[in-house]
Amino acid sequence: MAAKGLATAASAARRRGRAVPKIDLFYDVASPYSWLAFETLMRYRDLGVWDADITLRPFFLGGIMKATGNKPPATLKAKGKYMKGDLARMAKYHGAPLVPLKDPRAMFETLAAQRLLNAAAVDAPEQLEGLTRELWTRLWGGGGDIASEQGLQEACMGTGMDASSARSLLARSGDADIKARLKEETEVALRRGAFGAPWISLRTCADDDDDRKPWEAFFGCDRFDVLAQAMGQPWFGPHPSLSKL
Amino acid sequence: MAAKGLATAASAARRRGRAVPKIDLFYDVASPYSWLAFETLMRYRDLGVWDADITLRPFFLGGIMKATGNKPPATLKAKGKYMKGDLARMAKYHGAPLVPLKDPRAMFETLAAQRLLNAAAVDAPEQLEGLTRELWTRLWGGGGDIASEQGLQEACMGTGMDASSARSLLARSGDADIKARLKEETEVALRRGAFGAPWISLRTCADDDDDRKPWEAFFGCDRFDVLAQAMGQPWFGPHPSLSKL
Repeated sequence: MAAKGLATAASAARRRGRAVPKIDLFYDVASPYSWLAFETLMRYRDLGVWDADITLRPFFLGGIMKATGNKPPATLKAKGKYMKGDLARMAKYHGAPLVPLKDPRAMFETLAAQRLLNAAAVDAPEQLEGLTRELWTRLWGGGGDIASEQGLQEACMGTGMDASSARSLLARSGDADIKARLKEETEVALRRGAFGAPWISLRTCADDDDDRKPWEAFFGCDRFDVLAQAMGQPWFGPHPSLSKL
Repeated sequence: MAAKGLATAASAARRRGRAVPKIDLFYDVASPYSWLAFETLMRYRDLGVWDADITLRPFFLGGIMKATGNKPPATLKAKGKYMKGDLARMAKYHGAPLVPLKDPRAMFETLAAQRLLNAAAVDAPEQLEGLTRELWTRLWGGGGDIASEQGLQEACMGTGMDASSARSLLARSGDADIKARLKEETEVALRRGAFGAPWISLRTCADDDDDRKPWEAFFGCDRFDVLAQAMGQPWFGPHPSLSKL
């Protein structure tokens, strides 16, 4: 398979000591386009097509909108109508089982979910990816609510956690340091220019983590071709495993 | 070259009597992303990669924004900042010599230019593509103004028209039927869901030109992969001639 050959080439580059590009994915499970970006990024990582260090950074989209004065696209009638059709075909294209929300208000109630993800990032980082997917599958995949205690508990258990670990993680998500972490992640994204989600930031040089050093920004799930070009790595569309190269 | 082989395959499909997809590109030279969409579409047509009938439909973006309540993205500070960088790399990626406007107000003075393009569509359709490119090269390529009589005259002559033909076309652009045509084109785009530019609409069935029949909409210059998929035709990025397939 092509992806395998590419993975080998990428590993070779890594062994030669070239700086490995860093990709930060800032997301809020409120954002359906972020789900598409997430699945595509995870696919490129799992197949080893991209030699990049990808970090999942759950932030709070409500805070981003408030700080920048931006409004959700669907608040404009014509844009909302277009987005409905665009989301359906983009979901098919990127391969995420996205279904329209029955009640759009659910999109605005993700604060607890984003805190939970930050608790996972600190206490159970190996669960972060699975829990993120579980929350999206519930909210945007028709699998249930993520605003109630019960919904979040079920999401945790959907990743294979037992009831007691789920309860602990949920309790942790209310702690001051976790709340502060979510705020800080949102601030970092703002400093990197974010006004929406997904906000993908890329650093190709070997700089340290000083945020004053420049990061390149990619907004949305429709700039992967340009992101790949910026890294000097290939783009085969959202399903690299289907590539015939 | 790969594109040649594909062109042959496309022509064969056409000969077999399959319905040829129709693509309408609604654009205003005010919109830089429309320039990128235009150049990429013209490239796919020139190389014969896509078997599609592409129609250039100059409309009035100001009218679209007013009717839908939409605002130019750059009116939001963070979005304007992002757009500046995004435009530069997208221009490089799509291959248009786009440079930032010295005076952003020039973007809002395209009514006369859009009328001129509608006059060309009626009186000199063979000039429409060249004149469109000329206007973009002036406004977004640093080549001069397109708001003054002088600027528009120069744009016409830039396509190879003599001074007298240029004057005639300019005079025609003030006629009532041309003004009405621009309004009508803008109305058609609104009926097809437009809230910005470029607005690309696609019909793959063999229906007649009844606007009540559905057209699929693609907003922006970043949905070509999905547009190609909807037509069942290939997408090789903005430069199909460089494809190694």
